[in-house]
Amino acid sequence: MGSAPLDVVGMGSAPLDVVGMGNALVDVLAGVPDQVLLDLSLERGSMELVDLRRAERIYGAVGPAVEVSGGSAANTVAGVAALGGTAGFVGKVADDDMGKVFVHDMRASGVELHVAVAPAETGEAEVRGTGRSFVLVTVDAERTMATHLGVSATLGPADVPEELVARAGILYLEGYLWDRPSAKEAMRRAVQVAHENDCSVALSLSDSLCVDRHRHDFLALVLGDVDVLFCNEEELLRLFAARSLDDALSSAGETGVLVAATLGPKGSVVVGGRGPVEVEAAPASEIVDKTGAGDMYASGFLYGLTHGHDPIDCARLGSLCAAEVIGHLGARPQHDLVGMARVEGLA
Amino acid sequence: MGSAPLDVVGMGSAPLDVVGMGNALVDVLAGVPDQVLLDLSLERGSMELVDLRRAERIYGAVGPAVEVSGGSAANTVAGVAALGGTAGFVGKVADDDMGKVFVHDMRASGVELHVAVAPAETGEAEVRGTGRSFVLVTVDAERTMATHLGVSATLGPADVPEELVARAGILYLEGYLWDRPSAKEAMRRAVQVAHENDCSVALSLSDSLCVDRHRHDFLALVLGDVDVLFCNEEELLRLFAARSLDDALSSAGETGVLVAATLGPKGSVVVGGRGPVEVEAAPASEIVDKTGAGDMYASGFLYGLTHGHDPIDCARLGSLCAAEVIGHLGARPQHDLVGMARVEGLA
Repeated sequence: MGSAPLDVVGMGSAPLDVVGMGNALVDVLAGVPDQVLLDLSLERGSMELVDLRRAERIYGAVGPAVEVSGGSAANTVAGVAALGGTAGFVGKVADDDMGKVFVHDMRASGVELHVAVAPAETGEAEVRGTGRSFVLVTVDAERTMATHLGVSATLGPADVPEELVARAGILYLEGYLWDRPSAKEAMRRAVQVAHENDCSVALSLSDSLCVDRHRHDFLALVLGDVDVLFCNEEELLRLFAARSLDDALSSAGETGVLVAATLGPKGSVVVGGRGPVEVEAAPASEIVDKTGAGDMYASGFLYGLTHGHDPIDCARLGSLCAAEVIGHLGARPQHDLVGMARVEGLA
Repeated sequence: MGSAPLDVVGMGSAPLDVVGMGNALVDVLAGVPDQVLLDLSLERGSMELVDLRRAERIYGAVGPAVEVSGGSAANTVAGVAALGGTAGFVGKVADDDMGKVFVHDMRASGVELHVAVAPAETGEAEVRGTGRSFVLVTVDAERTMATHLGVSATLGPADVPEELVARAGILYLEGYLWDRPSAKEAMRRAVQVAHENDCSVALSLSDSLCVDRHRHDFLALVLGDVDVLFCNEEELLRLFAARSLDDALSSAGETGVLVAATLGPKGSVVVGGRGPVEVEAAPASEIVDKTGAGDMYASGFLYGLTHGHDPIDCARLGSLCAAEVIGHLGARPQHDLVGMARVEGLA
């Protein structure tokens, strides 16, 4: 905001626990009656990509809103930093108010940024401006998202800072990137750099519709390139075209990948060297907004992995972070995660 | 946000309960430790105008923030609309992301807008861009504000839509406007139009530092042009250079103006035809953020006045609205004010 141009942030040189790459988005949060989802033909609980025209129709249909930085992988690395870990982020914003909001909030979270910055007023309308995600929260705290990627849709391999990725313990990628050809190439490039530098690769499947769109690509990626896979139950079922959770977990076990699948109020299940292990959800005092629950679970899990915890404790830490974020509006932590983890003997 | 240009909203023709005029701002809310206020030399609980450089220093010093539409008079008319009243707003934004956020939220609140829209990228840096107010919330829920007016500083008499003001039952002005010569002229022009059309004029003193800056002007305005005066205890004391609340109330009584002074947790006191009458605060379950308490008190009071309530019931309705807004982050109502008012027999 204001008139100072958005400055690209300089780079450090120390190792980083996690480097995330994803869509740099500002969330536009609005409470809506169920009827609005029907009127707008949005599928409850899912994320749909929308063009500018539809984005404006949606914005016009919702009530007064709140703007807060979002983006799946961006949320996750902000959570890692909130836990005391070191984190970096790769993405693309425009030099506009929302781009400044995104950059400020990431930097203020302690994340080392390497975001490409596009001029505010150039390029065709469809890919101009910082991306935004309309997050429609219904009274049951479920969130339904419609995302206009804006300039984030132009993220490409040239935007991948190899030095930054090379410093990562874990490179964390959101499946949403697979929706755009150039972002897909950026993901492939980042994975290559990670492999060349002995970084682990973690992938979030992001959304069940996203899995439907890219099932075979995701399977190939999981089998060939991924060390840690995050998903929820529905995404896991669709990835393995399984009819039951047991079947899906059995298929997951055969991949040899460490899989952490969130199960909503039932907690999560971890599939690694051993068979599936279920981990209870952490108690949440009140559920206000489920946005960011999966992202924050990944924060806790990744922090745990990069700090010597076994996968079960990683899942417990993930559950703790998810429970915090669903207790308030917005997808990033607002409370002292380190203190909460200490109470549970996890930090 | 996005790429569509900001459209100026058309005008209706029906009478409006309240038309507000004030700075069109987006609030940037961040929780801060007390030390940050000291580091930034900000006076707790007050509002300070800051230039672009200081605005950027403040933004750089706060953690991840939330953006939400604000502005004192804008909050008040949004509250009037939330109560089921009819309301209009006069102000000035730029054609940037934050301007679009402000316009969207006002329109979605049901307020008839007449905002002047300046191009996003022209004019000198100091008055470019939609205004924003950094709202630093400390752990005691107190808010300290630093406002960069941006383009709102250029609001002038030519921006006053006479037809809109003429339709108002009450013209509501925020004292903050007196800080800029051109906005002061806009206020004078709006008051003149109100007088010519038998609209009442209400004034909020806005802030104790603001009263210090303009004490004599405000006194002249109250004595010559104002029908309803809103203030808090400190502002009332400073306006009348009084040493005690009783003295200030006595001076207020001599003006012949209907004065509603908020007293924080003690409620409010109304001075009208009769001597001062105290009205209790409405119970608040939890105090999260005091931003907007005075603005929402004015919403309830003005709605009451324009719907045939006596001043004491107006104050009760004001207290109810204030209690709602301090229970959550942000300065505009999030709950069903009409339903709350009904429960109390006030709607």
